[in-house]
Amino acid sequence: MDIRRQVGLNVQRIRRSRGWSQEELAFESGLHRTYISGIERGARNPTVTVLRALADALGVGPGRLLDDGPPETASP
Amino acid sequence: MDIRRQVGLNVQRIRRSRGWSQEELAFESGLHRTYISGIERGARNPTVTVLRALADALGVGPGRLLDDGPPETASP
Repeated sequence: MDIRRQVGLNVQRIRRSRGWSQEELAFESGLHRTYISGIERGARNPTVTVLRALADALGVGPGRLLDDGPPETASP
Repeated sequence: MDIRRQVGLNVQRIRRSRGWSQEELAFESGLHRTYISGIERGARNPTVTVLRALADALGVGPGRLLDDGPPETASP
């Protein structure tokens, strides 16, 4: 899978596991909500400093955002 | 540590563990040698697609490039 799409799925999955809206993640990370939306859709190509901001806001290590499978829930 | 510096140290450590020059990593990853040099110095802010290219060339998962410690050798 394209790594941008993988990052987007990981951000979305972890964000939802926190019960957060995109607005809440935007506030916590200091990024704009439309940028979060673009990342989750795989439409953006975030830099490592953006990964750091997202990972810190979500309370995970930045490498988790690059994982190639969902570690918390399995697909059917 | 700044994540750009961490990525740089990881790329340099793994590259050297392969016995590769920056030129060899540039060839394998399709990136320019001066860009590799900038990443290793922490002067660049690489995107996730660049991490993917480096990780594929080095034969590691992309999350390894964000690790916050050297897993292979310890510092004295």
